Amino acid sequence: MFSIGIGIGTQNKSNAWLEVFYPRPLLHPSPEFPSFLEHFVLAGNEGTLALDEATRSALCAVMEQPDQLALLETLKDSQKPCVLTWLKIDGPIESTPAAYLKLHLLSHGLTRPNSLNLEGIYAALPNIAWTSDGPMDLSELPDAMLLARLAGRHLEVTSLDKFPKLTNYVTPEGVRIADSARVRLGAYLGAGTTVMHEGFVNFNAGTEGPNMVEGRISQGVFVAKGSDLGGSASTAGTLSGGGNHVISIGEDCLISANAGTGISLGDRCTIEAGLYITPGTQVSLLDEQGDLVKTLKARELNAQNDLLFIRHSQTGVVQCRTNRQAIALNAQLHQHN
Amino acid sequence: MFSIGIGIGTQNKSNAWLEVFYPRPLLHPSPEFPSFLEHFVLAGNEGTLALDEATRSALCAVMEQPDQLALLETLKDSQKPCVLTWLKIDGPIESTPAAYLKLHLLSHGLTRPNSLNLEGIYAALPNIAWTSDGPMDLSELPDAMLLARLAGRHLEVTSLDKFPKLTNYVTPEGVRIADSARVRLGAYLGAGTTVMHEGFVNFNAGTEGPNMVEGRISQGVFVAKGSDLGGSASTAGTLSGGGNHVISIGEDCLISANAGTGISLGDRCTIEAGLYITPGTQVSLLDEQGDLVKTLKARELNAQNDLLFIRHSQTGVVQCRTNRQAIALNAQLHQHN
Amino acid sequence: MFSIGIGIGTQNKSNAWLEVFYPRPLLHPSPEFPSFLEHFVLAGNEGTLALDEATRSALCAVMEQPDQLALLETLKDSQKPCVLTWLKIDGPIESTPAAYLKLHLLSHGLTRPNSLNLEGIYAALPNIAWTSDGPMDLSELPDAMLLARLAGRHLEVTSLDKFPKLTNYVTPEGVRIADSARVRLGAYLGAGTTVMHEGFVNFNAGTEGPNMVEGRISQGVFVAKGSDLGGSASTAGTLSGGGNHVISIGEDCLISANAGTGISLGDRCTIEAGLYITPGTQVSLLDEQGDLVKTLKARELNAQNDLLFIRHSQTGVVQCRTNRQAIALNAQLHQHN
Repeated sequence: MFSIGIGIGTQNKSNAWLEVFYPRPLLHPSPEFPSFLEHFVLAGNEGTLALDEATRSALCAVMEQPDQLALLETLKDSQKPCVLTWLKIDGPIESTPAAYLKLHLLSHGLTRPNSLNLEGIYAALPNIAWTSDGPMDLSELPDAMLLARLAGRHLEVTSLDKFPKLTNYVTPEGVRIADSARVRLGAYLGAGTTVMHEGFVNFNAGTEGPNMVEGRISQGVFVAKGSDLGGSASTAGTLSGGGNHVISIGEDCLISANAGTGISLGDRCTIEAGLYITPGTQVSLLDEQGDLVKTLKARELNAQNDLLFIRHSQTGVVQCRTNRQAIALNAQLHQHN
Repeated sequence: MFSIGIGIGTQNKSNAWLEVFYPRPLLHPSPEFPSFLEHFVLAGNEGTLALDEATRSALCAVMEQPDQLALLETLKDSQKPCVLTWLKIDGPIESTPAAYLKLHLLSHGLTRPNSLNLEGIYAALPNIAWTSDGPMDLSELPDAMLLARLAGRHLEVTSLDKFPKLTNYVTPEGVRIADSARVRLGAYLGAGTTVMHEGFVNFNAGTEGPNMVEGRISQGVFVAKGSDLGGSASTAGTLSGGGNHVISIGEDCLISANAGTGISLGDRCTIEAGLYITPGTQVSLLDEQGDLVKTLKARELNAQNDLLFIRHSQTGVVQCRTNRQAIALNAQLHQHN
Repeated sequence: MFSIGIGIGTQNKSNAWLEVFYPRPLLHPSPEFPSFLEHFVLAGNEGTLALDEATRSALCAVMEQPDQLALLETLKDSQKPCVLTWLKIDGPIESTPAAYLKLHLLSHGLTRPNSLNLEGIYAALPNIAWTSDGPMDLSELPDAMLLARLAGRHLEVTSLDKFPKLTNYVTPEGVRIADSARVRLGAYLGAGTTVMHEGFVNFNAGTEGPNMVEGRISQGVFVAKGSDLGGSASTAGTLSGGGNHVISIGEDCLISANAGTGISLGDRCTIEAGLYITPGTQVSLLDEQGDLVKTLKARELNAQNDLLFIRHSQTGVVQCRTNRQAIALNAQLHQHN
């Protein structure tokens, strides 16, 4: 068994799932957990078991894991529908509850970005109105808005989107998120991460921690420990003109304010404020003495360590300077001259 | 008659309108609608009719349009004041209810940006506290904040502004808005538009759809179908240093991440990541062979098709390259050499 | 006595303060105020007096300042704990109530950024879950989230942070804040300031007013009247790669969209769209005739008036042009050639 989650969710008026909250999702649950599940389930690669009162009680009777049992008992008086979702394998996503379970696995830190099969996730996630009355089917929103007004109540609509805010589902350890509207469920945030107001983290993306994030971490991008993204710093995603290459940022890097990168960075790299490196940017590579080694496309420097990227302010030339630790790289590049 | 809206709104303690919500605004209502209105109204170019119980009943008795009748009937038990607002012509805005009606026309997709007379809108819109208890007069906020605290309740103040969030008034079809705080009422969003977390759309601005918006669409700017704005991409507005020229973006353009434009773009134009084109930027125009045609100011390329703007990374020269479809443009520009 | 605040706040389940709201904080309260306080207090540089019913009544009996008396009387039926916080001197911050009092002093406009001793503020501020049920201890959030769900209620978590939104504590006069998630308590916003959706103001930072803020004002940065920050404009802070130099922006400056500065600007300076000036940027200083005066590092132009910074679009050279008012500066710089 790949994953199991006991959840509480929201359905629309046609009883279709809109979203599911899994307080304590399990990755690779212990063998005895799935064995009793066979009393209840289940063909296929993934599925859900509606936790009506009879099913919930039956599960309680055989559940041995204390925290899962406590959760099941808590659900006794739920005003909202409850469900057990299981994924036998990490296959393509076929349902809304399965999509939410995988997003929870990421944000609980149980799986890293780019390690899960997320095929089918867009189709599995309905576009939802996220409101102060909870998640709502988009088609039910206009009437709800009018009815709230008539009753003198305010209905706040915070988002119309397929993905919710991380913080309404998960409280990651040792993390600050200044504006929760900027971090989607499915983001992976390691302890010591601070996402400032201008920071953004998409699903299946994130940080190892500690990190200071004032820029945008696109889908698929992972930032290793000690690296900072300055305000409005951009990591190119695979949408909106980005290519197919999913980039990553190594340790102790700095992408300064208003800068950006379309290539992966190794460790200890810096991009100066305001400079955007795309894979096709022609870069003058300088050695430690400041002498030109060669001119190459930035993609040839993909994922290398110890690089400093600047645009020379007297010539407009984009330069890559290396530091003491980069001697090996220089030697290697000279060799290929 | 230009427009009519039946609405439900908020007044301050002095019975001045703060805002009005019009669930089903009408543009150019059918002739019989205004004719019976004459029983109730109305000199002037615009005006409001307070929908007290007697007036509401009288209107119900003569209303023939089913959806407007249904709306009127729904208002019977409203806890908040109701109003019918009419605009005989598209004149300057003279009242808060009229301003809100025009903003609704835009966001319901009934009128396009730059097609409405919005003169006087800033004066007509009071600066309001937008709170979890609904819209509130700014002067009434400090007491409300204290009283909520005393009662052990939380009062969330999401904005102090003249313009509200679009999503608290209108649910546009086929649209995603990841963070509703970034789209003002009065934005026009065509079906297939996704406004990501870093996107922004002002009032009297918007997209034809489909579009991916991760940048900022300033007041007056319209983006045609198939065009994308990367993260933090900027379209120069007429505030904060922008000029008087209202710009537009044609079809299938890409303004990449951290780029920007102060000129209009025609169709199929691209601005590379991190490059800002202002009207005064001196641009080297290259033909298909990469040969220099001439150097000109970017404003001379205003609204032309098939242009690619880059800053050469080895010389710092801002270049405009044309593609195969741009031959006609090249020929024309050579001619004017 | 340096400051006194009568407040109402939130404690966690261990009765530790999470935050305090001071509706009417006092800077340098009149002498008689502290004198009667001596009935109740108080050794040390700062401290708090729990306002239980007996203490509150006793204070009412001796309070002579009408607005403070009215506040005390209002607190009679509070559902939340009340407190009087006093700071004898402007010393290092030792407690959560003291930290909140200083943040209030800034946002009420009673003290300017960089005038208060804020040493110890990070340690004094707990990381809090800011929710639609009010501030909450982070460790209490997961259970609260589940219980709300079970009851069919929505619990919105807007932030996990040490600093709250300004607007949930203070309503500054003559100010617009389009998205309150972007302005922290402790920001100082002068009348006539508009902070647009892309604007951001940290604590101990702000504007003199009037100002249009569509960019980011980092901790410690102060912007004088008449200056505008375009969309995504950056003022380098002392975190995330910034240096130790706290910068300021003079009067009537324009930092255009997607631009930024790591040096202070004097009055009437402009940075063109998309250009980032760091202290180490080599700048060609031009006189009024456009002739090169000298090449220097931007830090040598720190805080000078009447400068226009551009990157020449045909050579890539970062230039600083001066205008008529800058003759004195030019003369001075020629002298030092």
